[in-house]
Amino acid sequence: MAEVKKMLKMESKVTLCAVQMEPLIGYKEKNIARSLELIEEAADHGANIIILPELCTTGYMFHNRREAYEAAESVPEGSACVKWAEIAKRKNVYIAAGITELEKGGLRCYNSAVLIGPAGHIGTYRKLHLWGDEKLFFEPGDLGLPVFETPYGRIGMLICYDMWFFEAFRLLALKGADVVCCPSNWIDGPPAELRTMGPHMAMANATANHIFVVGADRIGTERGCTYPGRSLIVGPSGWYKAGPASDDKEEIIYAEVNLMEARRLNRSSMNVIFRDRRIDLYDEMLGSGETPVPR
Amino acid sequence: MAEVKKMLKMESKVTLCAVQMEPLIGYKEKNIARSLELIEEAADHGANIIILPELCTTGYMFHNRREAYEAAESVPEGSACVKWAEIAKRKNVYIAAGITELEKGGLRCYNSAVLIGPAGHIGTYRKLHLWGDEKLFFEPGDLGLPVFETPYGRIGMLICYDMWFFEAFRLLALKGADVVCCPSNWIDGPPAELRTMGPHMAMANATANHIFVVGADRIGTERGCTYPGRSLIVGPSGWYKAGPASDDKEEIIYAEVNLMEARRLNRSSMNVIFRDRRIDLYDEMLGSGETPVPR
Repeated sequence: MAEVKKMLKMESKVTLCAVQMEPLIGYKEKNIARSLELIEEAADHGANIIILPELCTTGYMFHNRREAYEAAESVPEGSACVKWAEIAKRKNVYIAAGITELEKGGLRCYNSAVLIGPAGHIGTYRKLHLWGDEKLFFEPGDLGLPVFETPYGRIGMLICYDMWFFEAFRLLALKGADVVCCPSNWIDGPPAELRTMGPHMAMANATANHIFVVGADRIGTERGCTYPGRSLIVGPSGWYKAGPASDDKEEIIYAEVNLMEARRLNRSSMNVIFRDRRIDLYDEMLGSGETPVPR
Repeated sequence: MAEVKKMLKMESKVTLCAVQMEPLIGYKEKNIARSLELIEEAADHGANIIILPELCTTGYMFHNRREAYEAAESVPEGSACVKWAEIAKRKNVYIAAGITELEKGGLRCYNSAVLIGPAGHIGTYRKLHLWGDEKLFFEPGDLGLPVFETPYGRIGMLICYDMWFFEAFRLLALKGADVVCCPSNWIDGPPAELRTMGPHMAMANATANHIFVVGADRIGTERGCTYPGRSLIVGPSGWYKAGPASDDKEEIIYAEVNLMEARRLNRSSMNVIFRDRRIDLYDEMLGSGETPVPR
């Protein structure tokens, strides 16, 4: 009983951490080794849940399907997953990180995020909303929007462009997610007006659902594409708990939080988010996928 | 034909404008007079569509229902609506502004926004998601989420806390809205962590739907509540076209835009927002209004 009480006390606080790194396309083993160094550093600084960027083992800008397939691995026996499971066990941490996933049997590739804990692989999310040329290499996700339980709270995952679809955050929140981990490869457009809105999507969706959101972004320039960093950890108010990180440096940001805060859904003495929703009107959102009014 | 061509050319550009003002509770005639001064100034500076704050004729922090009902007016024969219709005709402008609305017959009060053009009252929106003590004075909106056509493009309206419900923006966008006008009375909480997310909600929802969003906020302190200004006009990229305005001054911000830009829904050569939506998964959003996983 004393043991249980001690564990519960410990687990009411959790240190979230976003690892901002620079994967190098074509150097998978090097990327995995670098991810392990950064995970080790984060764990040594007290991180409990460690979020890494999208496709952090392979890089992003594949030339063609063959390159994507060759870089891909299956879950949970792929080399990154095996090594992450080892370090998660050794350091007693949870890891949410993006990989290029090849389904068992080798037919379809996905842009995926795995959640791995001290006891091994917990679950996989496959990106639902694919950006640009990803549509040439990956299939759209077919595992829905899972929420996984951990001793610290319930974890959902979304990947980059998913964050532009409020429906995805809302569904995770309705399923009870306390934190949504978002491995990302945000992109700044060359004109200032196309600077990434990634951090804003994290903030807006956190407050709209009264949850924590972690955006772990990459940096660097890869085949002409520049990634802007700015990783951040956001609380249920929508404001920063940590970050935003720099535009161009590998770094780790930390925030000690209590994920249970997400369960106080009341914004004011009169407002409970999910009760305030006007579901009597929302069914029109589920049309054909085309705008009813052509534009 | 030359006349039509001239008109079409003219109407492809429109100057949006947000009027940031300080309504004084208990001084309805004074507030209406002040709104007319500001509308006149905006029109003289070339504004075509002029957005004013929530409840801009009456103030916000009513002590009780009686005070709300006494300040309320019916549409379109109420004193503010009549005067706004006069100036809209005289200056050839469109006005979207918040009022305390009493339904005809005098039974129910609403927190409403009216859209008025050169030919008079066009339509009314009644706030769907009520904040805090508004629930004591107003009924939840019962007119759905209308989109109104004008020569400049299609206009939707949301009011303040509505902006925290992505479903509302999404529905307006699906109905073809090019711009969503948001009369607001955002509130800063005393701790920095409760600074209003209003401007972020405008930005995130604009880019998520590839539309224009105008937030016209009020300023001033009223019965202990401080309103933070920061009115803004946002384009489909999510970034500012004008503003954010100051925290504490009456001012008018302008942005000359082409609302037709909202109709280019493609974000990249591979991405069309509404086609990218995963409506195969979204039906779970339409449950009982309670979170399926209790929290």
